[in-house]
Amino acid sequence: MPTLKNDRFLRALQGQSVDRTPVWLMRQAGRYLPEYRATRARAGDFLSLCKNPDFACEVTLQPLDRFPLDAAILFSDILTIPDAMGLGLYFEEGEGPRFRKPVSCEADIMSLPVLKVATDLDYVIKAVTTIRHALAGRVPLIGFSGSPWTLACYMVQGGSSKDFRRIKTMLYQTPELLHILLDKLADAVTAYLNAQIMAGAQAVQIFDTWGGVLADGTYQSFSLHYMQKIISNLVREHEGRHVPVILFTKGGGLWLEDMVQSGCDALGLDWTMNLGRARSLVAGRCALQGNMDPSVLYGDAATIRREVARLLAQYGSGAGHVFNLGHGIEQWVDPASAGIFVDAVHELSEPYHSAAA
Amino acid sequence: MPTLKNDRFLRALQGQSVDRTPVWLMRQAGRYLPEYRATRARAGDFLSLCKNPDFACEVTLQPLDRFPLDAAILFSDILTIPDAMGLGLYFEEGEGPRFRKPVSCEADIMSLPVLKVATDLDYVIKAVTTIRHALAGRVPLIGFSGSPWTLACYMVQGGSSKDFRRIKTMLYQTPELLHILLDKLADAVTAYLNAQIMAGAQAVQIFDTWGGVLADGTYQSFSLHYMQKIISNLVREHEGRHVPVILFTKGGGLWLEDMVQSGCDALGLDWTMNLGRARSLVAGRCALQGNMDPSVLYGDAATIRREVARLLAQYGSGAGHVFNLGHGIEQWVDPASAGIFVDAVHELSEPYHSAAA
Repeated sequence: MPTLKNDRFLRALQGQSVDRTPVWLMRQAGRYLPEYRATRARAGDFLSLCKNPDFACEVTLQPLDRFPLDAAILFSDILTIPDAMGLGLYFEEGEGPRFRKPVSCEADIMSLPVLKVATDLDYVIKAVTTIRHALAGRVPLIGFSGSPWTLACYMVQGGSSKDFRRIKTMLYQTPELLHILLDKLADAVTAYLNAQIMAGAQAVQIFDTWGGVLADGTYQSFSLHYMQKIISNLVREHEGRHVPVILFTKGGGLWLEDMVQSGCDALGLDWTMNLGRARSLVAGRCALQGNMDPSVLYGDAATIRREVARLLAQYGSGAGHVFNLGHGIEQWVDPASAGIFVDAVHELSEPYHSAAA
Repeated sequence: MPTLKNDRFLRALQGQSVDRTPVWLMRQAGRYLPEYRATRARAGDFLSLCKNPDFACEVTLQPLDRFPLDAAILFSDILTIPDAMGLGLYFEEGEGPRFRKPVSCEADIMSLPVLKVATDLDYVIKAVTTIRHALAGRVPLIGFSGSPWTLACYMVQGGSSKDFRRIKTMLYQTPELLHILLDKLADAVTAYLNAQIMAGAQAVQIFDTWGGVLADGTYQSFSLHYMQKIISNLVREHEGRHVPVILFTKGGGLWLEDMVQSGCDALGLDWTMNLGRARSLVAGRCALQGNMDPSVLYGDAATIRREVARLLAQYGSGAGHVFNLGHGIEQWVDPASAGIFVDAVHELSEPYHSAAA
């Protein structure tokens, strides 16, 4: 594999000193970029784009050609695992993801196949290797997966949900059954992330998009527990380097104290958490990633720079911070605003990393 | 006004000793009750139900006839204020509330009329007095309003929203304009709640349903600031009694320390917050209300009782707790489960209030 030229991101995740705060954007390869929309149009639809390693590589690199980002993230869908398990993922225009065969009873859960990543998800693994070569060492490549709880939400609801009624009914009526599903998913996610690492992913992020809908107590046992299990079974050393793990529970700010004990290298924060408070709470036990409100990118250059400056000051001097949005970049954002954001992070963070800082 | 026979709720809100933990349910007069659905069918539609004081009184009392609840809450809609300001509230089946004339520019905001509660919202004020008389002192009556931020969300978005793009764009592009809107709404909410108090509401709750979508820092200046302003201008003493104020920001668990300084008597908590941790955080400075996951009511009796017991133990002995769900009761809940919940709170809380406790 090509030698890494910019290791700011990997260093920051391990609490090592950097010259500037590294920055990337969740969903940085996405609909806000006209070149992404063009590639997607050529691919035909979203799933064809995901399932073709060359197209996936092309869109992964697009934001890097526009902005001096410090990391690339594999372009893929969060629901590749349930799709590979036979649930039949499809997308309805404006409706988000749907499954033809949602999981609704014990028999459905018991009959879920064990995932064979190398064959069932070969298109993802091929995409990782293709991207690593195409990156040619510019920046590290992040692999990712949805968390078991988040995957289970989509699988049981059959798609997106406002109230999560089906899975919460399962949680409170037949918790042992839900645990079986989550355990199967934890095994699948572990195999999936390890295959991504072996194929070239230099860090991985677990997206727990729906962890925040759980109650205090159930979050710990129905989401965090399984993410912890995954982390303890991941390949953490590859190509002679540590492979950092980032844990991101949207709406999980109240549970940071529990999350920091999961064995992760960094916690992703959404925009509701005070970054300074998060830093004192984790007290050097892991790095932090985040956490500007994505809507700030609807503001003008001065607003974006002011918010970046405010968050940098909140975090303060020293290492252990990867700048990001608190959630994915929205499709309506002007790409120029993303550029202003990335430049502001690099420019304004320099004083926080000087020898005197 | 009739003498109050059950003052557990008002006492708990003021941190005074009680024999059992008082309990009520957000949205307790609602679609999960067949008698509610029957009254609504007679009224014709939801808005006709809200705007007729006799119907509003009828549905307000329905849950009290089923369950030994410790408080009644005025049946009304959260969007009466913008409707009275001329935005034209309507409901589309399965779509939630919508406005015919959303607020979208400076001219819209500048031309919003000053609310004359006595005439513009006379139906609400009449409902309060009607309900107070019909209650005949059984339990106290809670009045309520949406928070300025929450009302503004609906007014600017034109209805419910998933991403709050319009109002967040306004927030980051023209914050001073949004502040003008919020200030107008704070004045309206103050007048509205004071009129409810003068008409017979014995406590009031401010529902900040959408405060949790704000970023740390903006929550404080765009939502909490205006709720604080309202609280400082409310009538706090009426009929020889203190009129407690409950502040409920859904998703606001990270900001309790700020909220406790608002001058409220109690903080409402959603189900993501650990009740014991919240108690030590507020350290006696206000009471707490909450916070069982409404989805627990999909579980069986044993599950409901176990969750009630768990939360009572988390809070511990002594006063200052009003039991509730962490959000409104869902329409699909079996009314019998609500009954099990209310009985469990009364039965299982007794030891926590004994002289020895």
